[in-house]
Amino acid sequence: METVSVFDILKPLKSRVDDYIFKFLPNSDDIPEITLLYEMMRDYPSRTGKGLRPGLLLLFNRAFGGDDDKALNTAAALEIFQNWIVIHDDIEDQSDLRRGLPALHVKYGIPLALNAGDALAGKMWEMLMMNKSILGPEKAIAIFEEFLNMYAHTTSGQHIELAWVTDRRWDISEEDYFGMCRRKTAWYTVITPCWTGAMIADAAPSLRNTMIKFGMELGIAFQIQDDILNLTGDFGKYGKEIAGDLWEGKRTLVLIDLLRKCRPDERLKVLDILNQPREEKSDSEIVGILDLIMKYRSLDYATEISQRLARNSRQIFTDSIRRFIDDEHGRILLSLIDFVVDREF
Amino acid sequence: METVSVFDILKPLKSRVDDYIFKFLPNSDDIPEITLLYEMMRDYPSRTGKGLRPGLLLLFNRAFGGDDDKALNTAAALEIFQNWIVIHDDIEDQSDLRRGLPALHVKYGIPLALNAGDALAGKMWEMLMMNKSILGPEKAIAIFEEFLNMYAHTTSGQHIELAWVTDRRWDISEEDYFGMCRRKTAWYTVITPCWTGAMIADAAPSLRNTMIKFGMELGIAFQIQDDILNLTGDFGKYGKEIAGDLWEGKRTLVLIDLLRKCRPDERLKVLDILNQPREEKSDSEIVGILDLIMKYRSLDYATEISQRLARNSRQIFTDSIRRFIDDEHGRILLSLIDFVVDREF
Repeated sequence: METVSVFDILKPLKSRVDDYIFKFLPNSDDIPEITLLYEMMRDYPSRTGKGLRPGLLLLFNRAFGGDDDKALNTAAALEIFQNWIVIHDDIEDQSDLRRGLPALHVKYGIPLALNAGDALAGKMWEMLMMNKSILGPEKAIAIFEEFLNMYAHTTSGQHIELAWVTDRRWDISEEDYFGMCRRKTAWYTVITPCWTGAMIADAAPSLRNTMIKFGMELGIAFQIQDDILNLTGDFGKYGKEIAGDLWEGKRTLVLIDLLRKCRPDERLKVLDILNQPREEKSDSEIVGILDLIMKYRSLDYATEISQRLARNSRQIFTDSIRRFIDDEHGRILLSLIDFVVDREF
Repeated sequence: METVSVFDILKPLKSRVDDYIFKFLPNSDDIPEITLLYEMMRDYPSRTGKGLRPGLLLLFNRAFGGDDDKALNTAAALEIFQNWIVIHDDIEDQSDLRRGLPALHVKYGIPLALNAGDALAGKMWEMLMMNKSILGPEKAIAIFEEFLNMYAHTTSGQHIELAWVTDRRWDISEEDYFGMCRRKTAWYTVITPCWTGAMIADAAPSLRNTMIKFGMELGIAFQIQDDILNLTGDFGKYGKEIAGDLWEGKRTLVLIDLLRKCRPDERLKVLDILNQPREEKSDSEIVGILDLIMKYRSLDYATEISQRLARNSRQIFTDSIRRFIDDEHGRILLSLIDFVVDREF
């Protein structure tokens, strides 16, 4: 089997999506303040990203015999979703960096950044309305409903994660964590991209449930891999603060495993540090937690679970999805599935 | 002419809209964090408000011969818009109070409140999608597009206002201020409520431009009256911190007038105070500005402009809208127009 490079696959797709977005988003206005708003709306989309989500959408659309031109608008709307939601995310998580550069609220302050996120969200819905002429009103509305479903899941998952931090809850089971990931990550990273792509190409509606099962497994695998990269990644590739999740006190599978395995006195110490507000934590405290993570091999555990979930999703793909698509697209999609857990950024 | 009490008109409409909203919004979930999210989403809608915007929508719908049952869903979506946007607004403006109670981010922290605003916004779009079965896909999409238009205007107006504060700009002309109010206030307070109400009742599309002109005048009048109430209102009725705009350093017609009329040394002193961050301002400094506002009669000036704009909108209504509706509804709508500038809350 010929090896397909995921970079070579995603790059041209991402660049078509970017071109489309930059033609769509407004540029300048007679009122200088409005020009600034437009600059802010174009800021995150102009930063380098993987383009995984719109890539999945376009590739599933192709795999089901669809035409890029019909799916491009929806892929761009998905990329816009990712961009405005992380503007709000960065404020909520007090993240300083996004894709290697200062977060939008660090550059412009919380009030303007929050509002620019709202304005960009409006552009996403506007884009989705344009599907009326591209795909007809029926399909436009159906895609709209898929986005609303994704939107509700993502905001509820984000809420769960934030509420755990706010309430200092650490009695989180693996199942709690998986439930949060399903909502926060699986829908917008895998299920909605893959399914709307297939849907635009007229895939059978009965396939939707299979795609949800497939995306749940792969989505959680993606999130666990993201948690691992957050602790071990190369900043140049990952583009976020290394160990930022520890500074933010986020609940991850790595920490759930550590807290389960470590001694009671270590557990007390770790929780004491994690529960402190960001600004009261010190480098040496964070390094102390990283040492314990190494000692108890919690990264290995998380990697193992992530790979198991990815294998499950691969199995669902092979058993129930691959038969609808040709060999070439089957190979391409499998390499993307592998990329989700093998990636270094 | 018989006097119609605006309270008696709005109250039953508001209560129908509220009932509809509380049936629509989710209540509880097996996951306790999600139940908290739902509580947060229901928080602002459960606080007493005027119900002016959904009231205008339902009354314009009736005036054009429409049926409440067809318009109720859209009126509720408009009320939801008002509620989620002020969640974000309160964070952006660092407002402590909303409708006499602590702001959502004061109760739950910025991260959870910001995200709950996003989640509530999703419910608004879901509601608007329900128009597909209530009004048919064509009209559902048309209303959707009106909301997107309103959304873009509101966020851009909010951006202008916030950017003036962030950039410490005080070289604001009356026309700059009016332009900001048109975007920030006129669309979502008057134009979209009145026009979508009429549209649902099949008003002639040619009337849209008249409605925009009418709403621009009345919308600015509303905002000026809001600025005046912010400085002079009775807290029990107004429900926000009195003189909150001065603490937040907001640009208003009252201040534009004061800065134009006062002596250069007074101007320097006033700007010095207004440019300070909220927490560095003192009560006596704020009282000092209020004294100057009295000395230069800037409230009288703003009231005069507000009343002139309201008269203009009344004129447009009488000349170009009233002929399409019967006497009774004409009287009711006129009393609402008068209420916008005569109100004390």
